[in-house]
Amino acid sequence: MLIFIGTGIWDENDMSLRGIEAAKRADEVYVEFYTSRPATNVEKLSKLLGRKIKVLERADLEEKSIELVRRAKKLDVALLIPGDPMIATTHAAIRVQAKQHGVKTKIIHSSSIVSAVCGMTGLHNYRFGRSATISYPHTSYTSISKFPAETIKANQQINAHTLLFLDLHPKPMEISQAISILESLDENFLNLFAVGIARAGADNCITKCDRLDRLKDFDFGPPMHVLVVLAPKIHITEYEYLKEFTDAPKEIEDLVE
Amino acid sequence: MLIFIGTGIWDENDMSLRGIEAAKRADEVYVEFYTSRPATNVEKLSKLLGRKIKVLERADLEEKSIELVRRAKKLDVALLIPGDPMIATTHAAIRVQAKQHGVKTKIIHSSSIVSAVCGMTGLHNYRFGRSATISYPHTSYTSISKFPAETIKANQQINAHTLLFLDLHPKPMEISQAISILESLDENFLNLFAVGIARAGADNCITKCDRLDRLKDFDFGPPMHVLVVLAPKIHITEYEYLKEFTDAPKEIEDLVE
Repeated sequence: MLIFIGTGIWDENDMSLRGIEAAKRADEVYVEFYTSRPATNVEKLSKLLGRKIKVLERADLEEKSIELVRRAKKLDVALLIPGDPMIATTHAAIRVQAKQHGVKTKIIHSSSIVSAVCGMTGLHNYRFGRSATISYPHTSYTSISKFPAETIKANQQINAHTLLFLDLHPKPMEISQAISILESLDENFLNLFAVGIARAGADNCITKCDRLDRLKDFDFGPPMHVLVVLAPKIHITEYEYLKEFTDAPKEIEDLVE
Repeated sequence: MLIFIGTGIWDENDMSLRGIEAAKRADEVYVEFYTSRPATNVEKLSKLLGRKIKVLERADLEEKSIELVRRAKKLDVALLIPGDPMIATTHAAIRVQAKQHGVKTKIIHSSSIVSAVCGMTGLHNYRFGRSATISYPHTSYTSISKFPAETIKANQQINAHTLLFLDLHPKPMEISQAISILESLDENFLNLFAVGIARAGADNCITKCDRLDRLKDFDFGPPMHVLVVLAPKIHITEYEYLKEFTDAPKEIEDLVE
């Protein structure tokens, strides 16, 4: 069996009892830090679980994933994944491959920025539209994906918030870089209000709401960072939460519908 | 301090180490089962944490929430919340009230259907649009909220999936009832494809993809249930996952873009 175990939003203490138990019982335990950069590492996870853990690289998850699937045909193999499994499509592809090879699978869920963003911003879960990832320009073409810009525009049309993940490779992108990329796609974006979030789930998590042109110069400290672009209109209770917990400027009162 | 602790998607074993530790250290521990119906109860949680836990009712979370806030001014008060805290706006309102009364707050995140839905369906996280709750008709007016119908239509316009939560009160709504309510708003909805999910996070979780008119007669077993209406077009990898893990009919191949 191949067991996908989420390790949660920040460090190894975000693992659930169910996840810890399953990892302890498995024949082999692997972990990957390719799809996210959590505040834990293989030593801390090994100590918590009391066993050896092997780190998988990108190739192990992609072109060589069949090796993992083959081992799971004979053994109970646990794959530790930062956040909640299956948010990255890489893991979904491995689960499909396993099923096609007759290997049983199981998912053990954990905390993720996808739901935690509501607690960090006070924005209502049901008011989030599609999300997107802001990627670094491809160096060979210096082209920038227009997908995040299109997603923001589509969500603005239906009065929805937009959660933007920032690229991790070659190194975790910061909010200021992400805003520069958005600006290069359409400088009108700078007038939108957004909430920047740094180190979601950590004790030193920072959430700051402001217009994008001002957030660009705000010091969020070290990664990981994500960005939420507000819908054109916000609910009064969203406004109150933003005011109390994200140091939002007075102007966002004008967005209240 | 007032500490909001998520107990996770299914039962007490979905609590994180961080959440358990914080609940054990708190001066008082409360739990509420008003905003969700998890597969745990106060006895199981008390046993896990080795301490007394008091159950809060709807009124304790709404008109009488100031009492909780006042206790948290002097003591460390932990409030256990099924799923991830702050998905229900009730909790967000208490956090704002606490801040306004000078009470420190903290959120400890846990697993939630909001992100777990991706693992259960294989649908890409970034392709979900706004979500909505299908409520029972108000008995005094026999009127039905049009909000879920409008949300589905808006998401269809931007080619996004729609996660629909089902009403919990007076008792958890089932998928067949939810589909009847959608049908009464617009019978064309019956032609849309969707995935029904029962008991998310449990070992006996069921996921079934089909057209809404056929899902209406499918036996999902006991609650809790949620429903995901598919976008008009799906990605090839979404199709493959749906085929392998949700017993999807051949026809959904036509949705692949």
